[in-house]
Amino acid sequence: MSVLQEISQNVKSIKQLDYAVLARRANQIQKELSQGVRKPYKELIDLCWGDPHSMDVKPLTFVRQVLAACVYPELMSSHKLPLDVRQRAQWLLGRCDGGSVGSYLAPTGIPEIVQRMSESIRRRDGGVPCNPDNIFISPGSQWSLTVLVNNEAPLRTGILTPVPCHVTTIMSIKSLGAAVIPYFLSEEHGWALQVEELQRALESAKGGCNPVALYVINPGNPAGYVQSRKSIQEVIQFASEKRLFLLADEVYQDCVYGKNSEFVSYKRVLAEMGPPFSDTVEVASFHSVSKGFMGECGLRGGYVELVNLDPNVVKYIFNLICKDSTTPVLAHFAMDLMMNPPRPGDPSYPLYNQVRNAAKHQEHVVNSLPGFSCQPVEGGAFVLPRVFLPPRAIQKAKEEGMQPDTFYCMRLLEEMGVLVSPGCEYGQKEGTYHIRYNIKNKLHFITT
Amino acid sequence: MSVLQEISQNVKSIKQLDYAVLARRANQIQKELSQGVRKPYKELIDLCWGDPHSMDVKPLTFVRQVLAACVYPELMSSHKLPLDVRQRAQWLLGRCDGGSVGSYLAPTGIPEIVQRMSESIRRRDGGVPCNPDNIFISPGSQWSLTVLVNNEAPLRTGILTPVPCHVTTIMSIKSLGAAVIPYFLSEEHGWALQVEELQRALESAKGGCNPVALYVINPGNPAGYVQSRKSIQEVIQFASEKRLFLLADEVYQDCVYGKNSEFVSYKRVLAEMGPPFSDTVEVASFHSVSKGFMGECGLRGGYVELVNLDPNVVKYIFNLICKDSTTPVLAHFAMDLMMNPPRPGDPSYPLYNQVRNAAKHQEHVVNSLPGFSCQPVEGGAFVLPRVFLPPRAIQKAKEEGMQPDTFYCMRLLEEMGVLVSPGCEYGQKEGTYHIRYNIKNKLHFITT
Repeated sequence: MSVLQEISQNVKSIKQLDYAVLARRANQIQKELSQGVRKPYKELIDLCWGDPHSMDVKPLTFVRQVLAACVYPELMSSHKLPLDVRQRAQWLLGRCDGGSVGSYLAPTGIPEIVQRMSESIRRRDGGVPCNPDNIFISPGSQWSLTVLVNNEAPLRTGILTPVPCHVTTIMSIKSLGAAVIPYFLSEEHGWALQVEELQRALESAKGGCNPVALYVINPGNPAGYVQSRKSIQEVIQFASEKRLFLLADEVYQDCVYGKNSEFVSYKRVLAEMGPPFSDTVEVASFHSVSKGFMGECGLRGGYVELVNLDPNVVKYIFNLICKDSTTPVLAHFAMDLMMNPPRPGDPSYPLYNQVRNAAKHQEHVVNSLPGFSCQPVEGGAFVLPRVFLPPRAIQKAKEEGMQPDTFYCMRLLEEMGVLVSPGCEYGQKEGTYHIRYNIKNKLHFITT
Repeated sequence: MSVLQEISQNVKSIKQLDYAVLARRANQIQKELSQGVRKPYKELIDLCWGDPHSMDVKPLTFVRQVLAACVYPELMSSHKLPLDVRQRAQWLLGRCDGGSVGSYLAPTGIPEIVQRMSESIRRRDGGVPCNPDNIFISPGSQWSLTVLVNNEAPLRTGILTPVPCHVTTIMSIKSLGAAVIPYFLSEEHGWALQVEELQRALESAKGGCNPVALYVINPGNPAGYVQSRKSIQEVIQFASEKRLFLLADEVYQDCVYGKNSEFVSYKRVLAEMGPPFSDTVEVASFHSVSKGFMGECGLRGGYVELVNLDPNVVKYIFNLICKDSTTPVLAHFAMDLMMNPPRPGDPSYPLYNQVRNAAKHQEHVVNSLPGFSCQPVEGGAFVLPRVFLPPRAIQKAKEEGMQPDTFYCMRLLEEMGVLVSPGCEYGQKEGTYHIRYNIKNKLHFITT
């Protein structure tokens, strides 16, 4: 019997993922295949993760050359590495204490790199100013929730959260003792975010909790929607009216495929709207080296830009980040490479540009198989088609104690050797079922 | 006015460090020096961090070569890298999805690497078995506190915590809403951990909180004490009797200098004590690639081994780690390199061994300057001498609104260009003052 007899309900709210059960079975199948067990397929295809490198998308040569030279600076004396690679590595290492990626990072990052990041954000936003003091680097975004949640208040802190949404976000909110206020994206409208639905969700929360923040994901994940400028304006107006803090997950900003879609940042729209919005609505915009065209999930790093935050609150955020400061140096370097890539004329530019465009054009062809209905994908890395399951399958799933779409995923895994994740993991309207898979891959099972 | 009007007391408990004020001033001085402002010194010496690389300790060539080859595998085709480097890199990459360090890591790490880690722990502990299922990798150790703390219980969770202790640990405990129960290490006895003091501290907490865990740091940090087998036995007996969960911070296990000192793990002593201790006392032992002879602080990675934990509790730990899983792949690789270094006969062994020993022998010569009293340093990376301040200095500090030892550090910085951190940051007996600095460096200011 453990001394920890009473585990807090918050910790207990963190559940095992349905995906974990599927992944465990996938591992077993992998083993069976390698032992020669006969199956209807020869290899297993994992389409679960937003992880391009695990699916044979090649890392960017420029990025890897610079990072390797930073790890082992002796490489710089070799002329095998292009000049711009060596120069960049030299510059980055010169910003580190002791010239080593093994030294600690100051909690707010390396000032010169953060300065360059702010210039890149300014270019992205058509000249809207970006103050480097408002940029904080971090290996994750959980601290932002810690700041928002107040467990001492008489009412629980509430956070408006999209459905579908990544399950770890839901668990993070719950494990801090806050309440998730779900708002549904409209599948019929290509998973659009509709303000009337925000309104409905907020009303439904009345009395049960104190809503302080609205979490938006644009471009969408797992639903590949890209918000228009007009849609963002409406959300900002709503946040302003209801006094909500905007948490803008914009990590797929470099992954927009839709012909008529364009990524516009919340911060840019806010600035363009002018006062009173532009100087009152509080926004935290998140980006990451894991996503986008770089796909360096294994490096673990990203940043947040804070807009219109009360300096009193920023002070606590600074302290929180000081306490947890764990951004790997190489991830910080990767932010510089992501936001300041090689330019035309640089030795690394031709190869970089070629690989970059190859990644960009891996668009998804909307499938038309029976039993599937898939919204067009405008951005992000995933597709979330609806699956129409026959009543017998739903019954069978119940008998086996599984969610119907988890049951479907398990069959797909067993019979076709394809690993995808079930929609129940991300939330969905009752009676609807979905599967989620990554679009940056060979799409074996849909196209063959 | 922010929408976040009520920041939780837990978050507010995270204070700005006195060190941050000193570091800011140090940055200014750095700038002034580069602008040619005349000072009694030409360069600034930063002795604050447990960060060998920032103080010109060179990283291990073997480690950096393997990591560089993993980042940019094209390097492996060159014969400039030793064979064992190429072989290790090949093996490590073969364990990654897609053969790329850019892919996600499974929440429990890469099974084959964790298996090798468990074998290394077994060797360290003279054959005491180590189950790889009990090893969890993580970029930090904060989740362990999250599991311990229960905010719904009528009494706050209490954690027995040494004084001195790193301030971020204190802040982490408080920010979760738990109570710190301070126990003082005995400076007169070389900062020894004494069970009578644990007893006193526990008594003092009665009624105020519910003590569930005892946090120990061995080898010490910031006080460089190394516990004997007997001392560890006493602590285990105490934990068993009082039903306390043992959090054993053993990150400096490879940094023991004292002639008669030896690192023995809590787990090994526990096993040697036999039943009922060996199968009931719950221990979490932490290690990290940031510390020890490797000093790769910038990589951000470590592991915990859990001993005697209730599988019901391990389940929640697993879920928590799944939720937060952010260990960088390169940090996981570095654990393999730390725990399975080159062996005699390997091409990289001679250079590795030479560098390794150089790091090991940078022992501290106890100073005998007036106004200082310094306990012998047996292990760890820091020294924490007591500073005897004249009443006038204490008065002056009060006038400037500073802690007396922060005031002393500020003078040392201004007048001699040396940055150390004040003892008040780590806790100390009332009326005593200390400074902390790193021993793995050139020791300019003490020896010149």
